[in-house]
Amino acid sequence: MTIPLRELEFDLFEVLRPRALEVATVREVLVAAAELARREFAPHAAEADADEPRIVQGKVVLPAATGRALAAHAEAGFLSMGFAPEHGGLGMPFVVSQACSALFAAAHVGSFSYALLTQGAANVIVHFGTDAQRAHYLPPMLAGRWFGTMCLSEPQAGSSLADVRTLAEPHADGTYRIRGQKMWISGGEHELGDNIVHLVLARTPQAPPGVKGLSLFIVPRRRDGRDNGVRLLGLNHKMGWRGHVNTAISFGEEVECAGELVGELHRGLAHMFLLMNEARVGIGLAASALGFAGYRYALNYARERHQGRALETRDPLAPQVPIIRHADVRRMLLSQKAWVEGALDLVLYCATLVDTQAAGDEAAQRNAQALLELLTPVVKSWPSEWCLEANKLAIQVAGGAGYTRDLPLERLYRDNRLNPIHEGAYGIHGLDLLGRKVGLAGGGAYQAYADAVLAALDAARPHEALREFVAALGDALGALTQVTRHLTQTAASGAAPLALANATVYLDAFGTVTIAWRWLARAQVALEAQRTATSAAERDFYAGKLAACRHFFRHDLSRTAAQFELLAGLDDTALTVTDEQF
Amino acid sequence: MTIPLRELEFDLFEVLRPRALEVATVREVLVAAAELARREFAPHAAEADADEPRIVQGKVVLPAATGRALAAHAEAGFLSMGFAPEHGGLGMPFVVSQACSALFAAAHVGSFSYALLTQGAANVIVHFGTDAQRAHYLPPMLAGRWFGTMCLSEPQAGSSLADVRTLAEPHADGTYRIRGQKMWISGGEHELGDNIVHLVLARTPQAPPGVKGLSLFIVPRRRDGRDNGVRLLGLNHKMGWRGHVNTAISFGEEVECAGELVGELHRGLAHMFLLMNEARVGIGLAASALGFAGYRYALNYARERHQGRALETRDPLAPQVPIIRHADVRRMLLSQKAWVEGALDLVLYCATLVDTQAAGDEAAQRNAQALLELLTPVVKSWPSEWCLEANKLAIQVAGGAGYTRDLPLERLYRDNRLNPIHEGAYGIHGLDLLGRKVGLAGGGAYQAYADAVLAALDAARPHEALREFVAALGDALGALTQVTRHLTQTAASGAAPLALANATVYLDAFGTVTIAWRWLARAQVALEAQRTATSAAERDFYAGKLAACRHFFRHDLSRTAAQFELLAGLDDTALTVTDEQF
Repeated sequence: MTIPLRELEFDLFEVLRPRALEVATVREVLVAAAELARREFAPHAAEADADEPRIVQGKVVLPAATGRALAAHAEAGFLSMGFAPEHGGLGMPFVVSQACSALFAAAHVGSFSYALLTQGAANVIVHFGTDAQRAHYLPPMLAGRWFGTMCLSEPQAGSSLADVRTLAEPHADGTYRIRGQKMWISGGEHELGDNIVHLVLARTPQAPPGVKGLSLFIVPRRRDGRDNGVRLLGLNHKMGWRGHVNTAISFGEEVECAGELVGELHRGLAHMFLLMNEARVGIGLAASALGFAGYRYALNYARERHQGRALETRDPLAPQVPIIRHADVRRMLLSQKAWVEGALDLVLYCATLVDTQAAGDEAAQRNAQALLELLTPVVKSWPSEWCLEANKLAIQVAGGAGYTRDLPLERLYRDNRLNPIHEGAYGIHGLDLLGRKVGLAGGGAYQAYADAVLAALDAARPHEALREFVAALGDALGALTQVTRHLTQTAASGAAPLALANATVYLDAFGTVTIAWRWLARAQVALEAQRTATSAAERDFYAGKLAACRHFFRHDLSRTAAQFELLAGLDDTALTVTDEQF
Repeated sequence: MTIPLRELEFDLFEVLRPRALEVATVREVLVAAAELARREFAPHAAEADADEPRIVQGKVVLPAATGRALAAHAEAGFLSMGFAPEHGGLGMPFVVSQACSALFAAAHVGSFSYALLTQGAANVIVHFGTDAQRAHYLPPMLAGRWFGTMCLSEPQAGSSLADVRTLAEPHADGTYRIRGQKMWISGGEHELGDNIVHLVLARTPQAPPGVKGLSLFIVPRRRDGRDNGVRLLGLNHKMGWRGHVNTAISFGEEVECAGELVGELHRGLAHMFLLMNEARVGIGLAASALGFAGYRYALNYARERHQGRALETRDPLAPQVPIIRHADVRRMLLSQKAWVEGALDLVLYCATLVDTQAAGDEAAQRNAQALLELLTPVVKSWPSEWCLEANKLAIQVAGGAGYTRDLPLERLYRDNRLNPIHEGAYGIHGLDLLGRKVGLAGGGAYQAYADAVLAALDAARPHEALREFVAALGDALGALTQVTRHLTQTAASGAAPLALANATVYLDAFGTVTIAWRWLARAQVALEAQRTATSAAERDFYAGKLAACRHFFRHDLSRTAAQFELLAGLDDTALTVTDEQF
């Protein structure tokens, strides 16, 4: 129940082929990650789900295996692999670190998330911290001794960060006194390491109202070895993702709490968002990994479970067949394959943009940045929605057994239900994409996207076998471009609420076109590789890509026509219905 | 968190208007059911979910509140209300009993299912039992002292009943000795009453192989006050629906187990299936009720929870607004409303067919029977799929809070995930609909369906306000008819596997057209009633129906065009991809 290395290698070495990749090294890294995921993360996933985090004598208790897995993960260098050598990392491309993360998340997303969050917090300090802050915080964090969190939400401010109230008052010693409560804090309190480094969004006195008055502070749980006034208020009891503790915490309510400003005053949200792009690629990654784990488990189950007979078999004494022989089971497996492989490819594609953005030539950097900005809401949201659907179908393949806790499928489904909610709910990303991103750089970001899709169409066009897909994607891109123009013009002419009323539908359609683009690129590579493949297994591998591509175009891309029609018609039902009419 | 009585009354008294209904009586019954659901079922739903059934000293332990609720339910006459007076019932129409069941299922489906199963088992005995069997079993069952089960599946035979192996050997005393194991038995063992009456599908020696050799037996847990050899093998630990115990049990493996034949030898499955239509309406009912409960909770949450501001508000100090003011929240509420109200209407419509089938004039009976046969896979499946989606959106409306167990939404979602699985998985019903039902009576069943839709179109046509819907549904019905003909002809010409390869897609599209038909009928009634409505609340109620109808047509019915195109194209991807290519 994991992501086959062959799949990751196909994506990295055959489809995406980022320039800087040393194939032999990366292959070794992936093998090691898969082995660590199998040995340390997967075995306690069920236990951590059943044995939820709880408070015992004021301390958060987690399964011991969680701590062991994270220690092994840091020890093997996976925690720091993406960081530059001067910060104690291995300087590996982000795309490689993401490919490894996919393996860990597929094995056990709950335990692995502690590492993901620590990487995210360390990354903020790398980018915006002073030399002193880096020297103080990064070594223990990247060694896995200190953990990290992001503290944004508050009880009265979930999606609405303008309403953050936590206060940060300047102190004579140059630090700030932090006071307030934060909600939905993942990894907010536990005993996994020696310290927890909270990154806290707070408001200084006299700061402007709204998000422009927010600054970012480093608030360690213990400071210079002393209690720094961070208190656990309670745990959230979640539907899934239970291996990961989620908390409400307070700062400075009992004991004075000191925070250090990181980055510029009043630029807290901007700083956070710069890193958010990576965090959101990370959500898409987690969603894809959970979907993938479910797909592979269901596939294996369908091959082993015997039940029923072919439609044309009339003899009830004929032996039963593996359920993978039934067309509807195959349809469900194809849908899962098309969604999870397409989603993971998009995640890794976006990871290459993060790498290019940091290290390509200037034009390439600009292009990568524009694409990444545009694709961030998509890579966060589409996998969250459709890999959850994949988990739903994985349960369906296994029937009653899939509904029990004897199989991991229902847990994966419960875990994945979180992804459309955290790091910005689905609807927020729709507004972000349609209300902001497609208009960036005067529409230049959208043009960069359309150019990338057109390049894939051009590359595929010579192949007769891809003709159906080239035509369909060409049409869909045309419709997307047209509807994008129509909606942005409508918004610009003063009817923004009407243009944005179905932004979530737009996001879903945009995502489906995007995954179709990725599938076309994959199908083209597979088609060409198939000709020179030297083993039956390799030929099957590539033929499977073509089948999944076909399935996606016929069953998924075909949905977008009705969505574009709805969007073009400026459906206002959600705006005109009154509160009382529900 | 329940189904408003106004909604049930709208459906029963304004839309469906079955002839035999005494409005005042039915209204009283509904009020009493709502009150009982609120008082006895809803309060322990969370407890029963957290405190799963477990085995203590060989006995299944359930929350005491479950037994109390069921006793009150039987006591008040709801258990027996649908049965004829000569069997101890109230002779209420099935549609009324279903409307009451919707209220109980919305309050707590887990506890209520014990009653549902007992009704189903008693119904089998009413139809196929001897006078002696009726006299012996019905009184304690309908009084709520004895409970019922249906024992079909076995460890090696889930969806594939041809492979049932449980043996029934005739005995000199006229009974049969039952030996075998049954799996996935809901309510298979517990201490709620004095006895459990298992209806067991088993094979007599020398019976023909396959489903044609199966007979049905009444196998009480205790017989004449003595242990009858039924043993609990274990409990299934499920994702949801946890208030209801699900078991593996064995018959006659330790102690001799006697069963009585019910109905004809070798007609067991046919007998079971005759009753299955009602059981499957019952699944659609449970799915709709769970979806409804989630919708109403989310609606209330959206009205009370303040978060964020309108798009056009620039002042971050302006007060936050209830989240129902956000277009995307309204869109999600409209989708839920359209799905759950449409689904519940279809369920109640099918319940009226059950009533007509039993008591109309002969032509009406035949017509109702044909429609019911055809709609059974639809009413079982469409609500199961789309009311689960409704529960998914209900969680999304509440965001992070919806993902926690503090709110009932994640429980409803987990509960509802069972419905596409039990009583025939989704894929099975697709095959039933396309492979069997649409061809029944030489296509007469389909024609009866098309006629019903055409009648609704005719009735709506004079209304200018319904024009958009009349056009769209007319087109969709035309496309459905055409694709149905194409697929049945393809199947008849020897290519059944190809015609049936996407039967699940056909089922989904058929269901969507069906719900659009129901919405059009509802919209027409609402439009006419709106004109004479005397209060603002009533006008809002009807206007809400029109808005939900519009939303359904634009967001849901619009999906079917691509589905029909896929079906017409005889997509064979699932057939041609090989096992090795996944």
